[in-house]
Amino acid sequence: MKMVNLDHISANPLLPEVQNAMIEAIRMNYGNPSSQHKAGEQAAEALERARESVARLINCAVPKEVVFTSGGTESVNHALKGLALANRDKGKHILTSNIEHNSVIRSLRRLKMMNYQVTSIPVDEYGRVNPDHVANAIRDETILVSIMHSNNEIGTIQPIEEIAQITKEKKVIFHVDAVDSVGVVPIDVQKLGVDALSFASNPFYGPTGVGGLYIRHGISIWPLLDGGVQENNKRAGAWNLIGIIGMGVAAELAMRDMDSRLAKMGKLREKLLQEMPNYIDEYYVNGHPEYSLPNLVSVSVKYIEGESIVLMLDDEDIAVSTRSACASGSLRASHVLLSIGLEYADAQGTLVITFGVDNTEEDIIRFLTVLKDTVKRLRDLSPLYHKAAQP
Amino acid sequence: MKMVNLDHISANPLLPEVQNAMIEAIRMNYGNPSSQHKAGEQAAEALERARESVARLINCAVPKEVVFTSGGTESVNHALKGLALANRDKGKHILTSNIEHNSVIRSLRRLKMMNYQVTSIPVDEYGRVNPDHVANAIRDETILVSIMHSNNEIGTIQPIEEIAQITKEKKVIFHVDAVDSVGVVPIDVQKLGVDALSFASNPFYGPTGVGGLYIRHGISIWPLLDGGVQENNKRAGAWNLIGIIGMGVAAELAMRDMDSRLAKMGKLREKLLQEMPNYIDEYYVNGHPEYSLPNLVSVSVKYIEGESIVLMLDDEDIAVSTRSACASGSLRASHVLLSIGLEYADAQGTLVITFGVDNTEEDIIRFLTVLKDTVKRLRDLSPLYHKAAQP
Repeated sequence: MKMVNLDHISANPLLPEVQNAMIEAIRMNYGNPSSQHKAGEQAAEALERARESVARLINCAVPKEVVFTSGGTESVNHALKGLALANRDKGKHILTSNIEHNSVIRSLRRLKMMNYQVTSIPVDEYGRVNPDHVANAIRDETILVSIMHSNNEIGTIQPIEEIAQITKEKKVIFHVDAVDSVGVVPIDVQKLGVDALSFASNPFYGPTGVGGLYIRHGISIWPLLDGGVQENNKRAGAWNLIGIIGMGVAAELAMRDMDSRLAKMGKLREKLLQEMPNYIDEYYVNGHPEYSLPNLVSVSVKYIEGESIVLMLDDEDIAVSTRSACASGSLRASHVLLSIGLEYADAQGTLVITFGVDNTEEDIIRFLTVLKDTVKRLRDLSPLYHKAAQP
Repeated sequence: MKMVNLDHISANPLLPEVQNAMIEAIRMNYGNPSSQHKAGEQAAEALERARESVARLINCAVPKEVVFTSGGTESVNHALKGLALANRDKGKHILTSNIEHNSVIRSLRRLKMMNYQVTSIPVDEYGRVNPDHVANAIRDETILVSIMHSNNEIGTIQPIEEIAQITKEKKVIFHVDAVDSVGVVPIDVQKLGVDALSFASNPFYGPTGVGGLYIRHGISIWPLLDGGVQENNKRAGAWNLIGIIGMGVAAELAMRDMDSRLAKMGKLREKLLQEMPNYIDEYYVNGHPEYSLPNLVSVSVKYIEGESIVLMLDDEDIAVSTRSACASGSLRASHVLLSIGLEYADAQGTLVITFGVDNTEEDIIRFLTVLKDTVKRLRDLSPLYHKAAQP
């Protein structure tokens, strides 16, 4: 039976055009873009072409504001540690939110071990940060605010533009983790008014292990990787040129197809939300009803565990996730779900369903059909369910 | 005319088997190795297969002592910063040598900005560190020694095993930058007795932008990339799986062909050194005559500039380098050459010739023929040469 992939956030497939560009790059056997001879020149041209495509995707003023990295996690680590360390003479206080990705949380935890102070701002029941809370939490010694653009577990999109106005006014650097937004929804770094923005290639069907960090010209940052003079002295090390070329092509396709993808994702999401009550009961849909990623639905199914659902759906060749793949293996309930007020048990019963360009409405119906049966079987085994069902 | 590549150290071509494995990986459209469902399992298997191949290449006791990185520069940054920060309670003094790669020099410079002290040990005229100097320089507060295995500009190989005996005795952590050695000459981390060892995939014909860091079990180190629980909690972030699969296959081929490659490189090197006096005069060969990489020859041609030679050879489709590609763009004389006692002007006239499996003896003769003409033309224009030629 055909595999139904509703876990695109863990790994998007490479689009055929991206595959072809990467295969061509492999066969080209490019030289080193830093070399002074011809083989190096062709490589340098391919590198800068990719940089221009990626820069256009986020509307950079100049392409060299984009630094290529090994992915979203490196971008976030580079941004947070690099900005905090380069600006440590101005203060050591950093602001963030309660529902950030592990790469942000753990980078900040690391900075705390280096005597930085971190204040984490709560979110409302939809997972949104209130810009006034950011304004109120900024102190004289605050040097950096880091808030994600969209949440990878519940899809909620933050009021980044409003927060950027506050940070600009208060002269605090603003970093945005936009890993699950860039290439998925329109992102314009100039319109948003942010100072640094992290992103990755896979959310827009480029290869994993490749990403970028936008750093506005004039912002002071330490490299995370010290060494050679690559990337305008901001990130040393030989390039993953094959991956970068793939990301460049994926960026071009994301721009070309942004509107049609948004329309398609929106329809799939609507279909899923509309049909769901016909298949299961006693569930919540998490996240903001309006300010939300179009390709993500988070559902908490009461009385059962998300992990069990994932495994049973897998037996039927349906892939979904319980949370970000980076956190798989950890058995704790999601900090995101607890932050929006879910009970521990309900947080454990949460599924993250993410769509991609290859999905159809039939996939949604197939998923719901199998989910119905799965939920019934698991609830039959669940003491919580029987207890709740007692009069 | 056929391109003659004598600049393999800047960018080795991918071997056909490596290309095929990467192309297959692209077409496989692997899932995320962290996911709980089937697509994730296949990816996790491919990842661990690659890890086993790479672990065998350096003779790790257990494969999970290998952490995959985005290349040699990340490995070195991770090792130096991660070991220094994790062990800062024991002391803040670090020992290194005068001829390290920029990734080591600049990582240590960064640590100095964080109140670490660094002592740099001089080398002899062949570029070798004397182990006694290491022993004498270790102080109570010394926590880390970092010495490269082989030098990327002159090829000299260091007495790593002897230094490891000293660090073991003195209970100091020993990191080795083996980026230009792993897969080129036999490397056995257990026999060497080192605690951490950095390497990259391209020197053994794997893709650029992929590398590894060996960390001996029990050694305390901070991640450079904080976030998810990947790589046994040592390196967060989604994997560059296509690149890692390429590195795994390249590692297998390097083990299979190590002896024949060493024999071939040795013959090419001998041919070049034997024939050179028949083509040019007034030059030095740098590096150690015995303890040296088999695939590298460093030649300082008196009275002219290496950069000019590179450009003129490029016009004839011959690629050589003046120094490590990472440092291209910098006009300063090489710190490595100055450290072994070269005059500034002679350091400027240095060529780094690096062989690969695709080279033939005809390539050597073609290079020398064009070099002879190039040197003559450049010396005719050189005031230094005319001055030296005067009685």
